[in-house]
Amino acid sequence: MKNPRGFASDNNAGVHPVIFRKMQEVNTGHVISYGDDPYTPLAIELFKKHFGKNIDVYFLFNGTAANVLGIKALTQSYHAVICSDLAHLHVDECGAPEKYTGCKLLAVPSPDGKLTPQSIKPHLHGFGFEHHAQPKIISITQSTEMGTVYTVQEIREISRLAHEYGLSLHMDGARIANAAVSLGCSFMELTVQAGVDILSFGGTKNGMMFGEAVVFFNPAVSREFKYIRKQGMQLGSKMRFISAQFIALLEENLWEQNARSANNMARYLAEKVRETGKIKLTQPVQANAVFAILPPEIIPKLQKRYFFYVWNEITSEVRWMTSYDTTREDIDGFVRELNKYV
Amino acid sequence: MKNPRGFASDNNAGVHPVIFRKMQEVNTGHVISYGDDPYTPLAIELFKKHFGKNIDVYFLFNGTAANVLGIKALTQSYHAVICSDLAHLHVDECGAPEKYTGCKLLAVPSPDGKLTPQSIKPHLHGFGFEHHAQPKIISITQSTEMGTVYTVQEIREISRLAHEYGLSLHMDGARIANAAVSLGCSFMELTVQAGVDILSFGGTKNGMMFGEAVVFFNPAVSREFKYIRKQGMQLGSKMRFISAQFIALLEENLWEQNARSANNMARYLAEKVRETGKIKLTQPVQANAVFAILPPEIIPKLQKRYFFYVWNEITSEVRWMTSYDTTREDIDGFVRELNKYV
Amino acid sequence: MKNPRGFASDNNAGVHPVIFRKMQEVNTGHVISYGDDPYTPLAIELFKKHFGKNIDVYFLFNGTAANVLGIKALTQSYHAVICSDLAHLHVDECGAPEKYTGCKLLAVPSPDGKLTPQSIKPHLHGFGFEHHAQPKIISITQSTEMGTVYTVQEIREISRLAHEYGLSLHMDGARIANAAVSLGCSFMELTVQAGVDILSFGGTKNGMMFGEAVVFFNPAVSREFKYIRKQGMQLGSKMRFISAQFIALLEENLWEQNARSANNMARYLAEKVRETGKIKLTQPVQANAVFAILPPEIIPKLQKRYFFYVWNEITSEVRWMTSYDTTREDIDGFVRELNKYV
Amino acid sequence: MKNPRGFASDNNAGVHPVIFRKMQEVNTGHVISYGDDPYTPLAIELFKKHFGKNIDVYFLFNGTAANVLGIKALTQSYHAVICSDLAHLHVDECGAPEKYTGCKLLAVPSPDGKLTPQSIKPHLHGFGFEHHAQPKIISITQSTEMGTVYTVQEIREISRLAHEYGLSLHMDGARIANAAVSLGCSFMELTVQAGVDILSFGGTKNGMMFGEAVVFFNPAVSREFKYIRKQGMQLGSKMRFISAQFIALLEENLWEQNARSANNMARYLAEKVRETGKIKLTQPVQANAVFAILPPEIIPKLQKRYFFYVWNEITSEVRWMTSYDTTREDIDGFVRELNKYV
Repeated sequence: MKNPRGFASDNNAGVHPVIFRKMQEVNTGHVISYGDDPYTPLAIELFKKHFGKNIDVYFLFNGTAANVLGIKALTQSYHAVICSDLAHLHVDECGAPEKYTGCKLLAVPSPDGKLTPQSIKPHLHGFGFEHHAQPKIISITQSTEMGTVYTVQEIREISRLAHEYGLSLHMDGARIANAAVSLGCSFMELTVQAGVDILSFGGTKNGMMFGEAVVFFNPAVSREFKYIRKQGMQLGSKMRFISAQFIALLEENLWEQNARSANNMARYLAEKVRETGKIKLTQPVQANAVFAILPPEIIPKLQKRYFFYVWNEITSEVRWMTSYDTTREDIDGFVRELNKYV
Repeated sequence: MKNPRGFASDNNAGVHPVIFRKMQEVNTGHVISYGDDPYTPLAIELFKKHFGKNIDVYFLFNGTAANVLGIKALTQSYHAVICSDLAHLHVDECGAPEKYTGCKLLAVPSPDGKLTPQSIKPHLHGFGFEHHAQPKIISITQSTEMGTVYTVQEIREISRLAHEYGLSLHMDGARIANAAVSLGCSFMELTVQAGVDILSFGGTKNGMMFGEAVVFFNPAVSREFKYIRKQGMQLGSKMRFISAQFIALLEENLWEQNARSANNMARYLAEKVRETGKIKLTQPVQANAVFAILPPEIIPKLQKRYFFYVWNEITSEVRWMTSYDTTREDIDGFVRELNKYV
Repeated sequence: MKNPRGFASDNNAGVHPVIFRKMQEVNTGHVISYGDDPYTPLAIELFKKHFGKNIDVYFLFNGTAANVLGIKALTQSYHAVICSDLAHLHVDECGAPEKYTGCKLLAVPSPDGKLTPQSIKPHLHGFGFEHHAQPKIISITQSTEMGTVYTVQEIREISRLAHEYGLSLHMDGARIANAAVSLGCSFMELTVQAGVDILSFGGTKNGMMFGEAVVFFNPAVSREFKYIRKQGMQLGSKMRFISAQFIALLEENLWEQNARSANNMARYLAEKVRETGKIKLTQPVQANAVFAILPPEIIPKLQKRYFFYVWNEITSEVRWMTSYDTTREDIDGFVRELNKYV
Repeated sequence: MKNPRGFASDNNAGVHPVIFRKMQEVNTGHVISYGDDPYTPLAIELFKKHFGKNIDVYFLFNGTAANVLGIKALTQSYHAVICSDLAHLHVDECGAPEKYTGCKLLAVPSPDGKLTPQSIKPHLHGFGFEHHAQPKIISITQSTEMGTVYTVQEIREISRLAHEYGLSLHMDGARIANAAVSLGCSFMELTVQAGVDILSFGGTKNGMMFGEAVVFFNPAVSREFKYIRKQGMQLGSKMRFISAQFIALLEENLWEQNARSANNMARYLAEKVRETGKIKLTQPVQANAVFAILPPEIIPKLQKRYFFYVWNEITSEVRWMTSYDTTREDIDGFVRELNKYV
C-alpha cells in the first residue's frame, strides 16, 4: 500500500524504528500487568531525570484522556477551566472535558493560540459567589494549536497570575518536545520551574504508537490519581508497551532529535512557501506547524497528492504539520506542486 | 530481565509474534489518523466475515471502555444494568460504569459467574415507575470471570427474556475466543444468532498488545457511537496499529489457535492438580481459568516462582489463568512445585 | 422585621396573596403525592389552555432545574448548546448545565442579551465530525437577562435556522410573562407558533413561592422526562402546592396583571431616571429591568436604602429590577434619593 | 374535593397549620433571595440549638437532593457507598446517587432495613486497589424504610466501624423525628454524639410543605457545599419560605408533637390489627410504619376507601404509614373495614 507523506498531522506518521525496537525488546515472556512490570519504573525514572525527583507520573492511552483526567484530578465539578478558544481541549475533544469533569470551559479569544495575563484576567472574578462556576485551572497548550510557542517568561507570568488567585496551571504538552527544542530549554525550565502544576506529556505526535503521560509537579494532589485513571478507562493492562516507548523516547535524545527534525522541516517549508512570493503565512512558525492562506481553488488540487486540512473555510486558511519523518524531499516535491498552481 | 511465566492473568502475556509482525508491516509512511487509514476497513471486513454483514464495529483501547461505552450507547442515565455480582463490570472497573453512564448496576448473586432467567427475573420490575431505575441492559460475561461458559442455549434463554421485557443483551467478550473454542461454535452462533445485541470483543487477553472492539448487531443504535467513543477518550489517533492487530488475529485462525491452546492448558492444569488428590477445584474448567482451594500456608511459597492471585482470602481460593503461550512445561514445573508442599 | 422594597431582583418579592390563598385552599386532608393529586391535572389543563393541547408539561422546583433538565431531555452528552454569553444558563448556574447534561455551552457575544441568526451561524459547523461537540440546542431567554424582548419575528427566524440544521430551540422563560405582556401577544404566539420546541415557564419571578414548569411542544421527545425529573432530584412529593400556584397564576389573568405591573414600573422608573438628565440607560426597557451607568461613588449610598446589584464593576453599570409588587411610591422615593446624589 | 386520609405515605398529608401560618408571617415585602434574608439565620440558629454549635447546615428542596448532594460533598466519583438493599437511596431515587456522584452503591441485604457491623464488614475491602471502587460512605436510614429504628448504641457501633476504616457515616433522616421520639432521645444523641458525620434532616414527611436540610457535623468538609447545592439545582431563590417552615417546626416542639402523634397512631394501628387475630405483622413497629401480610384478594377492596401501597407483590406484604394528622377515628374506620374482609 502506498502511503503518501502529507502535511495533515504529525499523528499521520508511523512509529519511529527505535521505539518499535524497544517495544519488541520488552515483548518477552510474562510480566505483571497494569504497571507492576520491570519496565514501567524505568520509564518513570526517566521522567524524573527530565522533570525532577518530586513528580508523580502516570501513563495513559491518549492525549484526550491525559488532558481530561489530569484536569479532573485538580477540580470539582463546580470549577471552571480557562483556556484559549482555539485550545484542542475546547475545540477538538467532543466535549470530553465537560462530560467527564463537569467543569465549565471558559474560552478566551486568542488569535495566535496563546493566553496572556491580560486576556485571562476578565475571567478571574466571581470567587466565592455560588452562582458562578469557580475558576480553578488555566490551561495552556505548548506548543500551541497555531504552531506558536510560549516563552518561559510568558508561562511564568501566567503561572504567577494563576497562583495569585488560587488556580493551577495546566499545560497540554501534546507537542512539548517541539516547544522545548524551539526555545532551546529543558523540560524542567519549561514546566515546573515556570510554575506549571500539571502537564500532559505527549508521545504519540513525536514518534510513539500510543501513550501519553500525566505529570504532577505536586504529588500531594495526585495521591488518588490511580483511581481516576482506572475509573477513567485509561489503565492499560499490558503497560510495558507504553513504558517501553517512553524509555526509547527519553533514555537517549530521541525526543529531541524527532522534534528538532519536525521543527526544522516546518521552518524549511515556511521558507520555501515564502519564496513563492504569493502566499501569506498567518502565524509565526515556531514549532512544527505552518498556517497559510491559499487561493481556495488550488486547495483540492494540492490535496490530491499531499493531504492536509483546511483550518478555516471562510478565510481559506490551511494548516500544514510536519512530523519527525518529514524530509526535505517531501517539502521540495510539495512546493513544486504548489508552484504549479500559484 | 527474567519474566517467569506464571498464572496470574492472561494479560501478563506479551504480544503474539504474528500480531507483532503485522504491526510492523503497517508501520510504513503516513496514513490518515483516527481510522481513515487503509487497514481499518480491512479489519472491519474481517469482523463482518465473523459476525455477519449487518454489524457496526468500533475499535477502542481497552476492555473497560469497550464495556462502559458500549453500555452508554444503549442507555440513558436513568436506566439500570443487571449483571452478575462477580462481573468484571461490577467488581473490577472502579465504578467506571456508574461514573460514565450514570446507570445503576444491579448485581445478581451467581456463584459460577452465570446469570440465569431465574436469577434475573426478580430485577425485572418497576417498569414505568419513575422512582425506580429502569432495567435496560442485561450484561453477561463469556467466558465468565469464573472460567465457566454459557451454552448457546443459555444465552438464547437470557436474550429471549431480555427482549420480552424490552431490554438489550450485552456480552462482555473479553475472552469470547476461549468460549467459542470451548463450545466449538462460531462467533455468530454465540452472539447475534443467540440474541446478543452488543458485544465487547476482547483482543488483549488473546495475544494482542492493546485494543478491543465494540460490535453492534443493530446498526440503528450505533449511529452516534463515534461521538461516544471520541468523547469517551477512546479514539486512537494511530488507529492502524489496533486494526493491524485485529487483522492478524482474525484473518487466519490465530484467534482460535491462541484460545484453544490456553483452554487446553487450563484443562491440563486442572487434570494435573486433580491427580495430586489433595486439592479441590471449585469451578468446572470450561475456558482458561482454574479455581482451587489451597491450604493458605503454601500460597506464598508457590507464588514465589509462579505468580497468581488469591481470589478469596477467606476461603483460601486461588485463581490460575492460562494464556496463549502457556506450555505443558510451565504446568509440569508448577505442579512439581505444588507437589512439594501438599 | 422591616423588609424594604428594593430593585435587586424580582425574586426578592414575596408570594402574591391570591397565590397564597390557593395554596391554603388545597391544604386539606390527604392526597396522593408526586402529582397524582386532584390539582395537578387542573394545572396541566390550564397550561394546555395557554399553550395548546399538544403539549407535555412537568412541574419542578426551580428555574435552574427547568433549564438544565429540559435541555437534558433533548441532548446526549456529546451535544453542544448555543446561547448568549449573558445567558443565565451560562453565567449564573455554577456550571449546572455542563455537570448534569455533559454538554458543551457555546457562548455567543450578544451585548443586548439577544442571539441572532448572524451571531449563531458561525457555531453551526462541524456536524458529523466526531471531534466536535455536535450543536443540538439553541437556547434563548425571553425576556432576556438585559431586559430586552425578542419579537415573535426574531424568534421565528432563529427557530427556522435551528430546525434547518436539525437543532431544537429552547426558551428560558423565567420571565416569559413579562415578554408576552411587552409584546401584547399570547404564550402560544410567543412559543410553539414561533417554533420553540421546549420552554422553561417561570413562576417564581412572577409572584409564586417556588415552582417552574417545563413545557414540551413535541410530546414525542418528552416520553421519558418523568425519569429525568425524578433522577434530577426535582420531583416534589407534595406536588399539589406547586400545582395550586400555577392554577392561581393561570386560571384568571394574574400572570398578566403581575407582569404588566412590573413592566409598567420599569418603564416608569426609566422615565424618571431619564428625567434627571444625568444618567445613561444602557438597554432599551422592554420588560421589567432597567440598566444604567451610575457614578461609582453614589452606588453604595443608594444601596443603603434601596438594594440593587452592580452589573458591571468596570463600567459602573447597575441593574434595577421591578417586580409585581413594585409601586410608584417605591420608585418616586428611589428617584428622590437618586436626585440627592447626581 | 374529598381527600380521604389513607395510609399510603406520610407525604400524602398536607402542611401543618402552624407551619403554614409561619410561611404567611414571613410573606411580607422584599427580602434578599438565596438565603440572605432575615429568617434563614434564625432557622440555622435553631438547628444549632438542636445539633450543637459546630455544625454547618444547608436547606434544599427535597430529600432526594439532601441525600445525593450530601454524599457528593464527601465523595469523589471513584468511591462507593454502602447501604441497605432496602434503602430509599438505592431503591427509590431512580439512580440519582449514581448519576450525580458517580459513586457505586453497594447494597447490603437487610430484611429489617438495618445495617450491622457484621453485614457491612464484607464490603470493607479492596482499599488502595485501583480496580475497586473505594468504600467511603456508610449510609443508614433513621427511622428505616421498614419502620424500624436504630438504637443509639447500634449507630455508635456502625460509626466506630466506619471511622476505623476511614469512612464517613451518613444518615438519611427523612424521618429522624420519628426515630428521636421512638427512642426518647435528642437529635444530638442520635447523630453527632453517636458518630454521624452528615445528616439529611427531613421536614416534608413531618408536616412541612417542602424543604429538607443537610447538616454537616464537621464544617471542614462542607466548606464548598454552597457550590454543590447551587450546581445541584437545589438553591431556592425565595429561601425564606423554607426557613420559615423549619422555624415553625423547631422553635417549639412541633417536630416532636407531630412525630409522636404519627408514631402513636402506628402503634395503635398495629395493636388493632393484631387484635383481629388473623393478620401477621412483619416488622416491629418502632416509628410510623406498619408492615403486614394481607390475603391478596382483600387488598383492592381495602384500597378503595383507604389508599396504601403493596410493598411486596409476591408475599402480599403491605405498608401502612401514619402521619402527623392521622387520627384514632381514621384507624378505627380502617380496621372496621378490614374486619369486614378477614
